[in-house]
Amino acid sequence: MTITTRLTKHFGIKHPIVLAPMTPASGGALASAVAAAGGLGLLGGGYVDRVWFEAESAKVTRSDVGAGFITWTIPEDPGLLDIALERHPRAMMLSFSDPGLYAARIKKAGVPLICQVHCLDHAFRAVDVGADVIVAQGTEAGGHGWALRSTMPFVPSVVDALAARAPDVLVLAAGGIADGRGLAASLMLGADGVLMGTRFWATQEALIPDAAKTMVLEATGDETIRTSVYDVVRRRVWPPGYTGRLMRNDFIERWQGHEKELAQVRGEELRKVEEAQNSDDFEIANVTVGESIGLIHDIPKAGDLIHRIVAEASNRLMKFAPALAA
Amino acid sequence: MTITTRLTKHFGIKHPIVLAPMTPASGGALASAVAAAGGLGLLGGGYVDRVWFEAESAKVTRSDVGAGFITWTIPEDPGLLDIALERHPRAMMLSFSDPGLYAARIKKAGVPLICQVHCLDHAFRAVDVGADVIVAQGTEAGGHGWALRSTMPFVPSVVDALAARAPDVLVLAAGGIADGRGLAASLMLGADGVLMGTRFWATQEALIPDAAKTMVLEATGDETIRTSVYDVVRRRVWPPGYTGRLMRNDFIERWQGHEKELAQVRGEELRKVEEAQNSDDFEIANVTVGESIGLIHDIPKAGDLIHRIVAEASNRLMKFAPALAA
Repeated sequence: MTITTRLTKHFGIKHPIVLAPMTPASGGALASAVAAAGGLGLLGGGYVDRVWFEAESAKVTRSDVGAGFITWTIPEDPGLLDIALERHPRAMMLSFSDPGLYAARIKKAGVPLICQVHCLDHAFRAVDVGADVIVAQGTEAGGHGWALRSTMPFVPSVVDALAARAPDVLVLAAGGIADGRGLAASLMLGADGVLMGTRFWATQEALIPDAAKTMVLEATGDETIRTSVYDVVRRRVWPPGYTGRLMRNDFIERWQGHEKELAQVRGEELRKVEEAQNSDDFEIANVTVGESIGLIHDIPKAGDLIHRIVAEASNRLMKFAPALAA
Repeated sequence: MTITTRLTKHFGIKHPIVLAPMTPASGGALASAVAAAGGLGLLGGGYVDRVWFEAESAKVTRSDVGAGFITWTIPEDPGLLDIALERHPRAMMLSFSDPGLYAARIKKAGVPLICQVHCLDHAFRAVDVGADVIVAQGTEAGGHGWALRSTMPFVPSVVDALAARAPDVLVLAAGGIADGRGLAASLMLGADGVLMGTRFWATQEALIPDAAKTMVLEATGDETIRTSVYDVVRRRVWPPGYTGRLMRNDFIERWQGHEKELAQVRGEELRKVEEAQNSDDFEIANVTVGESIGLIHDIPKAGDLIHRIVAEASNRLMKFAPALAA
């Protein structure tokens, strides 16, 4: 089964599924596995951690892998963007804050530019700086983003806005998509494909402790929350509007709404968080996933997952036809 | 064109589209128009305002109309529920807080029970008290609800939960759905149909000032916000967790985050809000709509809207088939 869209044609891939460049989940093994299965694999660039990125970059087994960065952190090591463009030129995804400073470098390198957006103004800005693909991400997504929009109404709004302004720019749906139902729904909304984070976070190749993956299997989508407490404790000063969606836990219950107090005892709390990470204590350490955890019931290989999702989406699209009568 | 689902069969209706029982938008004319076009029309019961309800009930032109109430306000006039069940027995929808106190009365009257839910525990409770239909509403919806879940991941989660526990209970998607794309997407997610509020709010029959409807045509989905400030000013004490999604305006900008201060000057501010309502000043008066306003570009008749949505959804479902290759 294959589902052909503008995205699959544009990138010469088999399936309209893109791996979110999560750090640390989306290492070289996961990005390569997604590409090998016919999706678009993006290596996590995250907070421009050069040691991590070069180690994982070395594990990439294919030339058709791209990468992605947290845009506002690029100035901390601008050279890493050039390394990524050279080694993984299939695509460069920029998320969170203005892509304008780096778009020209990416385009000049001949690398397709993917921009993740959280409101219509972000989408217009991305188009203006030359984005080839816009990822319209709703608040249900795991990790950082804005709380302003949800995937169901946001995706068609972005599709309409681009149809009027930049009809050749592709649109991916992101946030709350974890199975063939979500892929089929996204196509109905007008998206050219989907970007998935949380669902790939829960695959065998993802660089996430097994204990965290296993815990998520038991959780429902009611158990996540948007918060900044881990940004405060790690002194990561995100631009206005950005919070992260994570599993609720004791640490968030303790500090949500008390961020100023947390900042005052940051050093001590950071030690606790780091110790908790080392001991798989996820009541203190963060588990960065979105609402779609409620749809996740196994830890498959990424390639098997992609084939399952495409088959489910295809079946759902096909089987509905008999319910339609002229 | 028709789309046949478990919902259309269960209610003997033509289209899997249900009118949200909004007050004051969903008066007798709108509920009747939706039913006449082959959807399920629900008369708004809102805050059990008997004068309003009886006046609008008298305008209902058909026997196949139902109604809906804000559950926690029913004790303010419990007899109104009985009147609604007798006059509009097609369905009774309960939203916001535990439906358990009234479910037996509704079932005894032989009226199908529709329960709107905002988390999985709500869904389980609704099933336990005998709901025939569950409305899974995401935070992108207009009016009151919870901020916890978004439609895209919430709907399939509810579908899965019911498939295991109560497979005969139907599921409607609500929140962010305003066109055939949203209907088609909801069907892909496993819903048996959709409940639409905001899109019907912007129809000719809706009991909303023309100036408010016109204003929404120009707005994008980025311009709504969840707030409690109008509940504070009207002294409507909602149960924990509920806020309302509205158009952002000056009044919300002024008071959001300052609700205690607002409560202290409530009388004066309420006068301003009521004056603003009378003069169509929507920087002070509330405009209660969801994120889907960004998808609304006209004020059609409700019946024409339903036919357009079904045609668009059908076309989208059918036209995707050629993109699938075995």
